[in-house]
Amino acid sequence: MNFHVLTLFPDMVQNGLNTSITGRAIEKGLISVNTVNIRDFSDDKHKRVDDYPYGGGAGMVMQAEPIYKAYGYLANHIKMSKDDQTAYKKPRVVYVTPQGEIFNQSMAQELAAEEDLILLCGHYEGIDERVLEMIVSDYVSIGDYVLTGGELPAMVMIDCISRLIPGVLNNETSSEFESLQDNLLEYPQYTRPEVFMGRKVPEVLLSGHHANIEAWRRQESIIRTYERRPDLLEQAELTEEEREFLTRLIFQKNYDVY
Amino acid sequence: MNFHVLTLFPDMVQNGLNTSITGRAIEKGLISVNTVNIRDFSDDKHKRVDDYPYGGGAGMVMQAEPIYKAYGYLANHIKMSKDDQTAYKKPRVVYVTPQGEIFNQSMAQELAAEEDLILLCGHYEGIDERVLEMIVSDYVSIGDYVLTGGELPAMVMIDCISRLIPGVLNNETSSEFESLQDNLLEYPQYTRPEVFMGRKVPEVLLSGHHANIEAWRRQESIIRTYERRPDLLEQAELTEEEREFLTRLIFQKNYDVY
Repeated sequence: MNFHVLTLFPDMVQNGLNTSITGRAIEKGLISVNTVNIRDFSDDKHKRVDDYPYGGGAGMVMQAEPIYKAYGYLANHIKMSKDDQTAYKKPRVVYVTPQGEIFNQSMAQELAAEEDLILLCGHYEGIDERVLEMIVSDYVSIGDYVLTGGELPAMVMIDCISRLIPGVLNNETSSEFESLQDNLLEYPQYTRPEVFMGRKVPEVLLSGHHANIEAWRRQESIIRTYERRPDLLEQAELTEEEREFLTRLIFQKNYDVY
Repeated sequence: MNFHVLTLFPDMVQNGLNTSITGRAIEKGLISVNTVNIRDFSDDKHKRVDDYPYGGGAGMVMQAEPIYKAYGYLANHIKMSKDDQTAYKKPRVVYVTPQGEIFNQSMAQELAAEEDLILLCGHYEGIDERVLEMIVSDYVSIGDYVLTGGELPAMVMIDCISRLIPGVLNNETSSEFESLQDNLLEYPQYTRPEVFMGRKVPEVLLSGHHANIEAWRRQESIIRTYERRPDLLEQAELTEEEREFLTRLIFQKNYDVY
């Protein structure tokens, strides 16, 4: 899968993704991260890419033209890179913005099926609406908070999507059996030593009894989700027994209060 | 404000924050970003920091000891850096994990009041639960998606919190009048030229009539929030007139369907 990032800070994006698992995926050729510097497409003699907003207000707005030209250059570059140019279809263009749909694991799964994905990173008070209308297919936000620019969110999305591409994680099953699986938070994990500063690993994990371990982990997941993210439980897939366990848990907690 | 990051990838964190607005804030001394490499605290001759999970399962778990030692070193370093050591209070330790409370703008505001903040970044299948119980004060997730490690989320949090520190943004008002203000998405922005590829800036923005511009922007915010994030509208503070506008909007949309 090829990620293409339209940005004012190409080095930041490249540096942030060439370590750890994404770095290894790039080396192996499983993904590529191509950056295009929007500033290179400014006709201004000072290479300016922003100007004051019409109608007034604080901050600056990124101008339409450099972004439109950078996009045109990139789209052409992607098209030319294909062996069969008649099969070329316009890649999706994601604008990373707090005004977007909230990114989540299923959106990542959907985007992981694309061959090419363009991510547009804004800065300052945003981007001239007209160029967005012309080129953007998806408005995506990584959460309800405001950041300096779109680079970190773009990196977050690339990291998340990359992990879902076959071969990127060492253990293929690893991305399936982890957090947010079934809308439950992951159970606690323990590794060597058996006793750390007086704290023992829970007995059941040392028992070798797989069914008991499975049951214990499932219960811990339910407890943790109830305590930290009760909103997720509505959509969690629980067995009848697990629902009963949850009911007792809620009763117990409320009873403790009085 | 001083950010301290416990991580296996200190360069990634430093490189990702030394550009743009956070970079300038570091230069000006308004914030500092200090990284501690957890691997430096491994006693293993191969500097390993992870091991297989007790009870089985895919992936590796980060061991308690290197993290506990790295934390101890850092906490002591922070204490020693204070002129008045009797006034020293233990800094909050945020573990960045999908098993946490969801980060948002008001949590950022709360954390921006801290003098020191420690961020712990996990990797692989997580961290041994025992060391988390011993040192972590806050479990925070930047969203419902799974990433390679805690570095990108830590950078996202640092970026978001930094913007709220006085002096970091050029225009102090800028962080107040932006996205997610009043639980409404921001209105569209336009800048020069007046006509871009046949597309004109909305007339009202060129009128110089401030009250009309204000009203237009407010309406556009409501329309956009209704279309993209209707979940936010429940908590939005709207005037009676704005509620009526919204009702007409919803009616119109539904009417269009039939």
